[in-house]
Amino acid sequence: MRYAVIGAGAVGGYFGGRLANAGRDVCFLLHSDYDYVCSHGLRVDSCRGDFLINPVQAYRDAAGLPQCDVVLVGLKTVNNHLLPDMLRKVTGPETLVVLIQNGIGMEDDLQAAMPGLQIAAATAFICSAKAGPGHISHMDYGTLTIANYSCRDNGRIDALVIDLTESGIETYLAEYKLARWRKAVWNMPFNGMTVALDASTDALLKNPSTRLLIYDQMLEVINAANACGVKLDATFADKMMANTDKMTPYKPSMKLDFDHGRPMEIEYLYTRPLAIAAAAGCHMPRLQMLEAQLRFLTKSMK
Amino acid sequence: MRYAVIGAGAVGGYFGGRLANAGRDVCFLLHSDYDYVCSHGLRVDSCRGDFLINPVQAYRDAAGLPQCDVVLVGLKTVNNHLLPDMLRKVTGPETLVVLIQNGIGMEDDLQAAMPGLQIAAATAFICSAKAGPGHISHMDYGTLTIANYSCRDNGRIDALVIDLTESGIETYLAEYKLARWRKAVWNMPFNGMTVALDASTDALLKNPSTRLLIYDQMLEVINAANACGVKLDATFADKMMANTDKMTPYKPSMKLDFDHGRPMEIEYLYTRPLAIAAAAGCHMPRLQMLEAQLRFLTKSMK
Repeated sequence: MRYAVIGAGAVGGYFGGRLANAGRDVCFLLHSDYDYVCSHGLRVDSCRGDFLINPVQAYRDAAGLPQCDVVLVGLKTVNNHLLPDMLRKVTGPETLVVLIQNGIGMEDDLQAAMPGLQIAAATAFICSAKAGPGHISHMDYGTLTIANYSCRDNGRIDALVIDLTESGIETYLAEYKLARWRKAVWNMPFNGMTVALDASTDALLKNPSTRLLIYDQMLEVINAANACGVKLDATFADKMMANTDKMTPYKPSMKLDFDHGRPMEIEYLYTRPLAIAAAAGCHMPRLQMLEAQLRFLTKSMK
Repeated sequence: MRYAVIGAGAVGGYFGGRLANAGRDVCFLLHSDYDYVCSHGLRVDSCRGDFLINPVQAYRDAAGLPQCDVVLVGLKTVNNHLLPDMLRKVTGPETLVVLIQNGIGMEDDLQAAMPGLQIAAATAFICSAKAGPGHISHMDYGTLTIANYSCRDNGRIDALVIDLTESGIETYLAEYKLARWRKAVWNMPFNGMTVALDASTDALLKNPSTRLLIYDQMLEVINAANACGVKLDATFADKMMANTDKMTPYKPSMKLDFDHGRPMEIEYLYTRPLAIAAAAGCHMPRLQMLEAQLRFLTKSMK
């Protein structure tokens, strides 16, 4: 299978790099890093062993890319309005587009813009960052969960899982809505709260007031998930709390974006799930409040 | 009537100063400012005309104060644990203690500690600050609303209102619970939100997301008030929003406390009203979240 990676940053660069490192045919669509990667390759410093992809099948424009079997999208969702134009150039009727993104609602929007497109969702559990041009730093974890959204060919998803696994990526399959909402149970409290209180995950959990608040916010997401027909138990919040207690203190992606003056993924991480839950009759007052605080902080950003 | 003022800061110093300036018999209990006030007097720079009280009937220790007819308490509620010891020294069976403080529940606690004490509540609508030792700066407003809590002598309250009015203080009477909850409708959203988002009242109202959030928080207080048997209409929130739009951008007292590294009045402004409302079956998730954020920020204070 031929792969394309759109958004070769901390997430797309890592997973695409792993596939290429395992000998898979991977094309990278690059913008600012194009020249650097053409001459120096793509370097991944990983806690599981460093590697360098050189030469890289690098493309500056989606129009130049060959048609691919699987497109891995590692873009931040704030750029999703650019996706249809890019994807029209690299997808055919058999192409599977995999959105490795945070949030809820991205697949609905992309499908509305491209009705025939075959889409899968992916949630990454990874601690990685872009260290420089063509340079990814992978600190911890690195699993991927794939969920079918509108792929008509299960064989394609199975082949993808095999490729990922053989490339050294621990890969799981999950039901679509469950995958997205389960990830939101952690994402919605921690991404926004670390920004709103300029705090790390461990500081929020150490303080008894914010610890309880984070837990209550997780329960809000679980209630919303259930209202949307996703079976998620309240004990999942306990599990997430315990897991986070064990984690190395960690800056969620929204905190990194905020600290670096980049736009925050408020729309798909908060606004859309809040609207989807409200349409199902379920309100999340604490997360709605967090969304408002984030919108205020966005306006204050220089 | 003889008055004592405990806590002669921005609020107690202003109202006590007005009474003294109108010739009333007012004793001031002072700590750090005692020496300064003894030699320089108490200066009030007021938007309604400056005045100086000199000499001041200043006392360093509550034990030295004569028994008074009315004790005006202008202390921050974070110091209320000190009140019973001080009040035992200056109150007799006929003394009326007036708590000019923000929050809900202070009178219950004081009454529990001093069962026979006659207590009134007061809410001040004033923009004033302590400018230096023995020096109050009064920028705007300056009305006082008095509410009987456990005063057995209505004549005493009437006499107080006359004294205050004759001293140039616009004074109103209100029902106790209504006075405290009505004030909380403004206080609970704005005090905490200006701290949590490091923002002024006008910035919070200008941003559509936080404007709606503030409004929703006001509705939470109004619902809680109603659950506690206080008749307050949702239109009161609209009135508070419109009033604040017209106000000069303003730093609430909690924001001033936080910015100056002083303890915040979280207990009586948030924790107690939240508990009282919860006991009446009413939850305020947004204000509970704000309380948790404030508790976190307290711990982070240097």
